[in-house]
Amino acid sequence: MSQPIYIAAYNQCKFGKLMAMTIPEIVANAVTGVCQRIDVPASVLDVASVGSACNFTLNRQGLLAGLVASLPGMEGKPIESVENACASGGQAVLSVIYKLLGGLGDVGVAVGYEKMRDDDGKMDGKLIGDALGYFSHPDDRTGKVFVFPHLFAEIMQCYLQAYGATEADLAQIAVAEYGNAKHNPYAQMNKVQITLEQALKVEGINRYVVEGLPLKTYDCSQITDGYAALILATEEGLRKLGVAKADAVEIAGYAQATDPLTKNGRNILRPSGAYKAMQKAYAMAGASPADVNVAEIHDCFTVAAALGTEVIGKAAPGKGARYWVDGKAAVDGECGINLSGGLIAKGHPVGATGISMIGFSYWQLKGMAPQGIQKKDAKLAATFNIGGALCASVCTVLRHAS
Amino acid sequence: MSQPIYIAAYNQCKFGKLMAMTIPEIVANAVTGVCQRIDVPASVLDVASVGSACNFTLNRQGLLAGLVASLPGMEGKPIESVENACASGGQAVLSVIYKLLGGLGDVGVAVGYEKMRDDDGKMDGKLIGDALGYFSHPDDRTGKVFVFPHLFAEIMQCYLQAYGATEADLAQIAVAEYGNAKHNPYAQMNKVQITLEQALKVEGINRYVVEGLPLKTYDCSQITDGYAALILATEEGLRKLGVAKADAVEIAGYAQATDPLTKNGRNILRPSGAYKAMQKAYAMAGASPADVNVAEIHDCFTVAAALGTEVIGKAAPGKGARYWVDGKAAVDGECGINLSGGLIAKGHPVGATGISMIGFSYWQLKGMAPQGIQKKDAKLAATFNIGGALCASVCTVLRHAS
Repeated sequence: MSQPIYIAAYNQCKFGKLMAMTIPEIVANAVTGVCQRIDVPASVLDVASVGSACNFTLNRQGLLAGLVASLPGMEGKPIESVENACASGGQAVLSVIYKLLGGLGDVGVAVGYEKMRDDDGKMDGKLIGDALGYFSHPDDRTGKVFVFPHLFAEIMQCYLQAYGATEADLAQIAVAEYGNAKHNPYAQMNKVQITLEQALKVEGINRYVVEGLPLKTYDCSQITDGYAALILATEEGLRKLGVAKADAVEIAGYAQATDPLTKNGRNILRPSGAYKAMQKAYAMAGASPADVNVAEIHDCFTVAAALGTEVIGKAAPGKGARYWVDGKAAVDGECGINLSGGLIAKGHPVGATGISMIGFSYWQLKGMAPQGIQKKDAKLAATFNIGGALCASVCTVLRHAS
Repeated sequence: MSQPIYIAAYNQCKFGKLMAMTIPEIVANAVTGVCQRIDVPASVLDVASVGSACNFTLNRQGLLAGLVASLPGMEGKPIESVENACASGGQAVLSVIYKLLGGLGDVGVAVGYEKMRDDDGKMDGKLIGDALGYFSHPDDRTGKVFVFPHLFAEIMQCYLQAYGATEADLAQIAVAEYGNAKHNPYAQMNKVQITLEQALKVEGINRYVVEGLPLKTYDCSQITDGYAALILATEEGLRKLGVAKADAVEIAGYAQATDPLTKNGRNILRPSGAYKAMQKAYAMAGASPADVNVAEIHDCFTVAAALGTEVIGKAAPGKGARYWVDGKAAVDGECGINLSGGLIAKGHPVGATGISMIGFSYWQLKGMAPQGIQKKDAKLAATFNIGGALCASVCTVLRHAS
């Protein structure tokens, strides 16, 4: 039986633009920021892992571990980067957990970041499209200009056709998420609101991304700069940090599973690795979907939010979008989902995303979520982070430490 | 007390050129090749980790875990990529170990590869120089055309000045390694030999890489395509594989440490993370440098071989090159070092390198090394894999399983 692992602290920047902040500065700010949350020096951290996805292609920077080790107190420690596309952040959390379980220390930090915009805030859509396209199978790229929106436009069409859901059903997910982000000062779309009419009307920036397929701009998550970090600890680690167990949250269940890279030849509407990882996390926590009343799921596109609602067990296959339309995913619904605003409105700084899902859920369980999006009596949280065209999943179940 | 971890199988391709082999094919060949060594299906593997360093910049491919998961029997398993520059391969081995210790399974595969040359065998030195340069601190890149050879030219000058070693001392390391590679059918430089005179004479391809600094072409490792894979197992895993313990090698000690990314402001001739990781590995194995009689160390440049000889404890600081000059590193010397040919003559397919060091040492302990470079009575092996400008180290100590 593994020893329990706790979250001792979480911190993130406001997602959106980090302007002229350099990569060494971003990494340093991520680590020092989370340490400040509980007023500990970086020297208390025994191990670290970094999640980032586009650091080579957009930032020309590798060996991020060496940037973490550049912080006073972090020299000579076990530090590495991990990558599983958009699940790199969740993977960094698991990497830290396994190092702690492996006896490398009592306290660790999982750091995630992405810097996807230029210093002047202008993004180069072509470059970012290429960089993200690298996370697909070469065979899946043929004939596609923007690989991921194109792949998910196909998945969206498949979802609508298979289940009889409508574009309006999925659009309501985006509208709900923008509504949540209004309350989240850390969200990129904190100042932007959309109506269902806007989300459906093809006008201005809202256009069909691929001709003949249903995905529109408002179905997409954001291009985002951001960093996030979690301090994880064993029971002994909590003692060293001076964090009372009652102030911590336990990562009661966690699992990872990777499916084949290509989306062809498998049931893409029921990604088996995602279901497997989530079921393993529930089993490890001794919990079931019915126990969960707050969740953060990987809505890189609205259809992924529908699928994610199904993966975490809150809706049967094909009923995920309906769960949102019925208001069950709202803050006062059965299970508040993506109350942070999700990737669509909180933003999607790729390497930070998985960490921020777990971090925001930790805030929910601690009652630290912003007013208006704090789930009342949050008791058990589920997170579902996935990378690629529904390829690599990291799932967790969080509960109050006791 | 952690449970012991064993090497059940090792396989690599001949390092050099993989010509038109695609990345999906390389990853598939790496996994199936190592499975064939002990005649098991991939389905017996519970977990996997992939080490690669230039996959984004040179291959435009991320989410390598999804390529591993594409192999029949590997779907839905815990698989991730790890990166610590030129120590990514060693890091993949540790990643698998920690997943096994974390209870994710009994058998795992560590896969490493790099594809650094074009399909027609012509490399683009500028592109590769840029790609490798990303593993340095931005502050260390200023004014350098080829960042890594430049940084190591500075380290070489520093070594020569600090210790009174000569260019000829370091050149003898390269000459010895080419001599070893002659016997290694897997080595890139299997058909190329150099004399000390050639290695010292600035003529033809052998030139000073940076004017005013002592590093010459023959001091450098190769630009290499290659893949390598190791099957690791717990004791229960060996049973499942049908591999007798007597046929396995134990990874008796292992450790990782990352130092600050910039080479400035620290004693670069005694990288403290490298020493720390090696000492931890020795302590874990309950062994000392005197017990080791075969080793593979990270000679990305001849000066790194000298430093590595010191890190593994076979020579005092400043005496590493002398150890080679005195013939102690030869196959019939006190401790055969880089009998494979090392990065300089076996080749340096970045992500595969750390795996191949451990793999070749496993062959040594098993008596499976090629004739002419099999260390007689190989009893304890040390490996030292390091990434960046002496930044991230992975060290192991291997012994016969008992």
